[in-house]
Amino acid sequence: MDRPLGERFALLTDLYQLTMAACYFEAGMAEEATFSFFIRKYPPNRGFFVAGGLEEALNYLATLRFVEDDLAYLESTRLFQRKFLDYLKSVRFTGEVNALPEGSIFFKDEPVLEVSGPVIEAQLAETFIINAVSLQTLIASKAARSFHVARGRPLIDFGLRRCQGTDAGLKAARASYLAGFLGTSNVLAGKLYGISTFGTMAHSYITSFPREIEAFRLFAQVFPDKTILLIDTYDDIRGARHAVRVAKEMEARGKRLQYVRLDSGDIAAISQEVRKVLDDAGLTYVKILASGGFDEFKMARVLDAGGRVDTFAVGTKMGVSADAPYFDCAYKLVKYGARPVMKLSTGKVTLVDKKQVHRFYDEQGRLHRDVIALREEAVPGGAPLLNKVMEQGRILGPLPTLKESRDYFISQFGLLPEPYKAIQDPPAYPVTWSPGLTALQAKVEQEILEREIK
Amino acid sequence: MDRPLGERFALLTDLYQLTMAACYFEAGMAEEATFSFFIRKYPPNRGFFVAGGLEEALNYLATLRFVEDDLAYLESTRLFQRKFLDYLKSVRFTGEVNALPEGSIFFKDEPVLEVSGPVIEAQLAETFIINAVSLQTLIASKAARSFHVARGRPLIDFGLRRCQGTDAGLKAARASYLAGFLGTSNVLAGKLYGISTFGTMAHSYITSFPREIEAFRLFAQVFPDKTILLIDTYDDIRGARHAVRVAKEMEARGKRLQYVRLDSGDIAAISQEVRKVLDDAGLTYVKILASGGFDEFKMARVLDAGGRVDTFAVGTKMGVSADAPYFDCAYKLVKYGARPVMKLSTGKVTLVDKKQVHRFYDEQGRLHRDVIALREEAVPGGAPLLNKVMEQGRILGPLPTLKESRDYFISQFGLLPEPYKAIQDPPAYPVTWSPGLTALQAKVEQEILEREIK
Repeated sequence: MDRPLGERFALLTDLYQLTMAACYFEAGMAEEATFSFFIRKYPPNRGFFVAGGLEEALNYLATLRFVEDDLAYLESTRLFQRKFLDYLKSVRFTGEVNALPEGSIFFKDEPVLEVSGPVIEAQLAETFIINAVSLQTLIASKAARSFHVARGRPLIDFGLRRCQGTDAGLKAARASYLAGFLGTSNVLAGKLYGISTFGTMAHSYITSFPREIEAFRLFAQVFPDKTILLIDTYDDIRGARHAVRVAKEMEARGKRLQYVRLDSGDIAAISQEVRKVLDDAGLTYVKILASGGFDEFKMARVLDAGGRVDTFAVGTKMGVSADAPYFDCAYKLVKYGARPVMKLSTGKVTLVDKKQVHRFYDEQGRLHRDVIALREEAVPGGAPLLNKVMEQGRILGPLPTLKESRDYFISQFGLLPEPYKAIQDPPAYPVTWSPGLTALQAKVEQEILEREIK
Repeated sequence: MDRPLGERFALLTDLYQLTMAACYFEAGMAEEATFSFFIRKYPPNRGFFVAGGLEEALNYLATLRFVEDDLAYLESTRLFQRKFLDYLKSVRFTGEVNALPEGSIFFKDEPVLEVSGPVIEAQLAETFIINAVSLQTLIASKAARSFHVARGRPLIDFGLRRCQGTDAGLKAARASYLAGFLGTSNVLAGKLYGISTFGTMAHSYITSFPREIEAFRLFAQVFPDKTILLIDTYDDIRGARHAVRVAKEMEARGKRLQYVRLDSGDIAAISQEVRKVLDDAGLTYVKILASGGFDEFKMARVLDAGGRVDTFAVGTKMGVSADAPYFDCAYKLVKYGARPVMKLSTGKVTLVDKKQVHRFYDEQGRLHRDVIALREEAVPGGAPLLNKVMEQGRILGPLPTLKESRDYFISQFGLLPEPYKAIQDPPAYPVTWSPGLTALQAKVEQEILEREIK
C-alpha cells in the first residue's frame, strides 16, 4: 500500500508556502483564512468547465502531515528555526471545505472550492490543491467536448503514453471517464478506479509476424470473444480483406469479430471503404474503431465527412488538453479573520469573501444563468451549488463514487443548452454578481485604494 | 520508502501490451525484439531536443515485476488464462538498452534509446518508457530555450502548481534543472533530486496583513539572509518604496535585502522604474526577480525592451511546455529475430534495425551534422552518441548524477551553433542516413510491398 496522499506529498509544495508559514508562526497569526479556487478566463473556444479532482484534494487535506524524513530535509536547508519545525510536525488540516461536486458544470470566476482554516493550514495546501484540481478539471473539461461531438458513440481514453507523467496518465483516465468516456487503455487506472479497460494490438505486433494475417489469426484464437484487428499496418483495404478472412474463420468456430481498427490516413474516406468491404462480405456486425490523433475537432471533421466510425479512441490531444494545456486558475485569499481581502495587481482582481454560486434554470429545466453571491446571502430562486464537504479536517459523509459523479455530469450536461457546447466560438454563459457581493467588492476596493495607494 | 518503480507501475501500461504478450506467449514467440524510441517531427519553432528521463526508464526496467495484487486484478478481468498469468508472475526485463546520455542534444528521427530483449519483455515496457522519456525530454527541450534567452541570468522553476499532476511537477523541476535552470520552488523535488529551492511570498501573504509594509517587515525579520519582497500586490512603485524602507531598516541591523519580485504588468517598463527607485535610494545591490507567465518568448520581449531583470522565475508555460505540450514520438519495433521490420502506414515510416547516431563536429568543435547508421556500421570520423547502459536487465555502471548530466548539457549546448538555438524559425540541423541504413531501408520496404501489398 502506498502511504496516504497527504504524507507522501506534504513537501510537494512551493517553498514560499513554508516561508510564509514560518512568518505567520513567528507573528502568532492563526486567524481563520478563506482561500477560493477559481478559473480566471476561458481558453480559446471554451465556454464551460467540468469540475474534477475534489476527492483527491480532500484525501490530501485529511491526511496532510510532515513525517520525520521530510522534517529532516527541511532542517538540512538551514532556512527554518527548530521551533517552527517542531510546530510543523504537529500540523494537521483542521478546517472546512465548501466545493462543487465532481462532474459539475461551472463557469469562469465561479469558486470551485473554498478552503477555510487557520491561515497556515489553508495556505500550505495551496500548491497541491491547485495541482490536483486544475489537472482533473482540465482533462474533464476537454473530454466533455469529445463526449458532446461523439453523440452517444462510445469513447475510449488512449492518452497514457503521451500524458505528462504517471500521475497525469492515471488522472486523464479518471477525468475522461468522469466526463462521459466509456473506458481506458490504462490498466492501472482500471484497477484503481474500477474503469473498464480496452485494448487491441500495436503495429509492432503485426510486424513481428512474417505476414499480417498470421498475426490476426493468433489474436482471434487467444481472444475469441474480444477480437479487435488493427488493419492499417501495411494497407487498410488489404488489411480489411485479411480481417474478413479471419472473421469468416471465426464464424466457422461460432465466434464473431468485434472490431477492426483504423489508426492513420483519411479516416472519413477509409472508414467508408472498409465499411463496404465488411458489408459486402456480410459482416455488418463488425464495428469500426478509429484512433490516431483524435480530439473533438478531428472527430467532428470525420463525422461531418460521412466517416463510418462506431467508436473513437481519443489519445494524446485529450490527455494533455493540447489546445489549452493549462488553465489560468488561482487559489486566492478572500478573507482573513473578519476582513474580506483582495489584490489589485493589473488585470487580476479577486472576488472577496466566502461565496456561493446560485444557478437558475429555465422552464424546461435547462441551465439559464448563474449568480455569484456572498456565502450567506439570500438569492431567491437560485439553487446553491457548493456543498460543505469537509469540517474540522474530516470528510463529511461518503463522497459520491466515480460512477455517481459521472452520472451527475451526464445529467447536468444534458441540461446545458446546445449553443454553450459548441466546440468553436461558444457564446458566454451569463454569470452575474449578487447585490451583496457587488457592494462588498466596491467597498473593499475603495478601502485598499485609500490605505495603500493614495 | 515507496516501492520500486517497476513494481509500482507494472500495470501503468496500455491493455494491448498485455493482450499482445498473451498472444506471443501462446505462440511461443520469444525471439529478441528491438524497439527504437524517437521523435518524428519538430513542433513549430523547434529545431533541437534535449534528452531526459533515461534514469527513470532504466529504474523501471530494472525493477519491473507484477506483484500478487496486480495479478489478482488481471485475473478479475477474465481476459487472461491462468498459465499466462503464472508466466507474468515470473517476468523480469532481461534485455539490453542503448541510449543517449541525459542532457544530450538530439534531432528528429534519431533514436534516443533502443530496447532489445525477448519480445514480450521489450513490448511490455513500451507505455512506461514513452511516458517517462517523452515527459522529461519535452520539459528539458522547452527549458533549454529559456536557458538560451536568459544568457546567464539565473532561472528558477515555478511550474509545480499548474503542471499536469504530481509526477509532472517533480519531473518539470528535474528536467528544467537538467537544461540549465538554477533551482525550483518545488520542495519535494529539492529533497528527491538535491536541487536548490527558492521561494518568496504570495499575494495572499501580503493581503493577510492590514498593511503591505507590515508583511515586508515580518519577512525581513524571520528570513534576514534570504529576504525577497513581492511588491506588486497593490501598486509596484508604492511597493518598491515600502521595500526601500524595509531595506534601510535591514541595513541598520547589518542585513541586506536580496531581491524585490515583480509578478504582473508591463515588466519591461516597471522593472526600469523599480530599478530607479532602488538605485536612487542607494540600493544598487538589491536585485529584481520577475515572475508571471514567463517563457522564452516573454523573456526575450522583456529583455529586448530594456527590462532590468536579474533573475526570472519560469512557471506554467515551461512546466507544461505550453506551445508544444506533447511530442510526436514513438517506440517502434525495428527488428524481430534476425528480421529488420517497419510499418508503412501513411506518413509514418520507421527506420529499420538497430541503429547508432554519429555526430560530426567542425574545426571549432561545434556541432556540424549527424548521421544515423546501422548499429555496427563503420562511420569514419563520426562520434557515436548512444551508449550501452543496460545489459541482461542490469544497469551498467553508475549512471551520471543529475548535476553531471546538467554539466554535460551545458557543455554540449555551448557547442550548438547559435542559429539552431533561435526560438523562432530555426534552420534544420543536417541529419542524414548512412549508406548501410539507406540500402537496408529500401530493401525492407521493397520486401514488404512485394509480400503484403502487391
